[in-house]
Amino acid sequence: MIAEIITIGNEILLGQTLDSNAAYIADKLTEVGADVRRITTIGDGNRDIVNILKEAMGRADLIITTGGLGPTDDDLTKYAICETFNRKLVYHQDLLALIKDRYSRRGMIIPEFVKTQADQPEGTILLENPIGSAVGIVIQENGKLVISLPGVPSEMRAMIDQSVIPYLKKLEHGFNIIFRNIQTFGTFESFIADMIRKNKFTHEDCELAYLPSLKGVILRLTYRGDDRDRGEKLLARYSEELKKILGEYYITDDGRDLIEVTTDLLKEKKMTVATAESCTGGMIAAALTDISGSSEYFLQGAVTYSNEAKTDVLDVPQEVLVDYGAVSKETVYHMAKNMRDKAGTDYAIAVSGIAGPTGGSEEKPVGLIYIGLAHADGVDVHKHVFGVDRQINRERTVYHAFNYLRKKLLEK
Amino acid sequence: MIAEIITIGNEILLGQTLDSNAAYIADKLTEVGADVRRITTIGDGNRDIVNILKEAMGRADLIITTGGLGPTDDDLTKYAICETFNRKLVYHQDLLALIKDRYSRRGMIIPEFVKTQADQPEGTILLENPIGSAVGIVIQENGKLVISLPGVPSEMRAMIDQSVIPYLKKLEHGFNIIFRNIQTFGTFESFIADMIRKNKFTHEDCELAYLPSLKGVILRLTYRGDDRDRGEKLLARYSEELKKILGEYYITDDGRDLIEVTTDLLKEKKMTVATAESCTGGMIAAALTDISGSSEYFLQGAVTYSNEAKTDVLDVPQEVLVDYGAVSKETVYHMAKNMRDKAGTDYAIAVSGIAGPTGGSEEKPVGLIYIGLAHADGVDVHKHVFGVDRQINRERTVYHAFNYLRKKLLEK
Repeated sequence: MIAEIITIGNEILLGQTLDSNAAYIADKLTEVGADVRRITTIGDGNRDIVNILKEAMGRADLIITTGGLGPTDDDLTKYAICETFNRKLVYHQDLLALIKDRYSRRGMIIPEFVKTQADQPEGTILLENPIGSAVGIVIQENGKLVISLPGVPSEMRAMIDQSVIPYLKKLEHGFNIIFRNIQTFGTFESFIADMIRKNKFTHEDCELAYLPSLKGVILRLTYRGDDRDRGEKLLARYSEELKKILGEYYITDDGRDLIEVTTDLLKEKKMTVATAESCTGGMIAAALTDISGSSEYFLQGAVTYSNEAKTDVLDVPQEVLVDYGAVSKETVYHMAKNMRDKAGTDYAIAVSGIAGPTGGSEEKPVGLIYIGLAHADGVDVHKHVFGVDRQINRERTVYHAFNYLRKKLLEK
Repeated sequence: MIAEIITIGNEILLGQTLDSNAAYIADKLTEVGADVRRITTIGDGNRDIVNILKEAMGRADLIITTGGLGPTDDDLTKYAICETFNRKLVYHQDLLALIKDRYSRRGMIIPEFVKTQADQPEGTILLENPIGSAVGIVIQENGKLVISLPGVPSEMRAMIDQSVIPYLKKLEHGFNIIFRNIQTFGTFESFIADMIRKNKFTHEDCELAYLPSLKGVILRLTYRGDDRDRGEKLLARYSEELKKILGEYYITDDGRDLIEVTTDLLKEKKMTVATAESCTGGMIAAALTDISGSSEYFLQGAVTYSNEAKTDVLDVPQEVLVDYGAVSKETVYHMAKNMRDKAGTDYAIAVSGIAGPTGGSEEKPVGLIYIGLAHADGVDVHKHVFGVDRQINRERTVYHAFNYLRKKLLEK
């Protein structure tokens, strides 16, 4: 089943809103095996909506639109649907009752203009909106399926999960995509590609794609075809082969990222960690606590930005700061060691560096970062020299810190 | 100038990657007055790329593509460009030298297949990539401009900022959109809409759009037309009127967000701050240090996740934790006060709460958050009850904390 997603809204074209709706829908459609071939964003104009609907009808079996279903003047999707499919608007008494009820439960009177929500294109299935007053619209024509959903992400998500996906799952034909992601960390896309080539890795009947990001390169294996069983077997086999080829760079192929793998290891091995951060300014602690239940493994962190804080809070000796500087192997050693002792944790991560974009010197350039990991047997300090972008340097540092912790946990 | 953006990559169609590139480019293009009419995402297939390029050439003056410029097998953009514009690939000796240099500076030898990066479509301008080895490609044909950039966000952003936008700014014709964003914080979209209605605010010849997010609602005023001077005047007048209507909810209209406004105030007033975080786990410190030069105003932070850490690090009295619990007005009071004393800062922000999704009780539900602000005259503690989503609760807390600090700074 070939699918297209259309998001409607000037705010996306102006770059003010990230199109998270399209990603959400694409993810859910792919999960049920639909083949999303195109995502298009257009503005709130009636002509644009009619044009893209007609175009997409020529290419896809399933079209999902979001946006433009509200009651205000810039909501034009249902009128465009009427024009595209040559239908009239029909008044739905029961829909008005539902909307009135929704308002009255909040102790509010329905504004006059909201009543237009009861007018819907004729000959359509209406999808209930569990959160808002804009209903979804389903049109079947010439064997094609067009589903229009509101653009408010919470409403769209609820309708996708509760109505659209269950409906699509019941359809029998044409679901033909499965994939597996191999998460790697620690080397560049080109080196991974080189390793794969040199090992003569073949992946017949599956696509292999490289998805690099600061979180590491993801290798995505995709199978498109009718024989799901065969696809699953191919993906499992290729994934196993890649694991061998990638060695220490292989993290997992079960959909988790580096941070999840690391925190899961902490939980599994009942280990605890504390953090002492300078240039990352709390990002490692924030990442550790992003996950519900993090109090199992994370006890405390210090963000020691100033030299005084490093001395006062972490007892980094004054002479170490004077002799070697805040950004040094020696300072990070003491930060990690003392944090572990103070917090009474199994591990402590410490970081100090020059995030940039300014503040470097010839001896200590922008991008110089030390990452320390204190453990039962001592402290390992790793040196990195990244680039000049502050945000990228901070993020890279976070992921490398997690990777050092992950590797240490695996030794246990 | 009508523009289209094309992002190339199966990972977006599979819903695995949020298309942040399109939003970034759309934002930058709109800033220089281009009119982005359509954003399309397609897969890595050569045929798809050729088709969309031809389509877009029929509609737009400027087309920017991202993705598919790397050296691996799924990078097909430059071949599709050759086919679309009927050009050959030409070998660039100097480009190979640059790429080799990039590798050797990292002490690495260039893998053989990466050398294909030196082959580029003939008759094009090549844009230097300050971060990676994939260059950008500029083609001018029949008065249209096609610019292809790599898909790695950091590389794409650097090239947009350093090459593409400066180049577009020099073009004289057809820039006809200007806009102004009014950042608000502290109330809901519908209440702002109501205030605006009740004050009979009119905005002739300008569009008004509402862009709600956790960072607050942005009111966007947009002027489309040839008379830039008149547009600027209208935007300034309407913005001034909205400032009066919005009162305490108005933050700024100069493009900064709540966090930037707050840290700028800290710098301007030469004030310092420290943080003591529980449920936000370092996010406030991370946001404070996200900005270069943050050591001027941020000295230290503590992430005291466990009760022991609250006692050991912040001297929260044992009996306070026992009598009132970690999530209480009293605990946050001590966290804020003691952090300020310890760090010797002008302000200290403290946070404790139940981020969720579990861990609540009838008395203390999920979403219950206390935010404390210690200052020279004492400690203010604010209570909030947010929803059940952990990520949203954590982010909301960060923004509210910044808003309390901002308001206090404005009293000075």
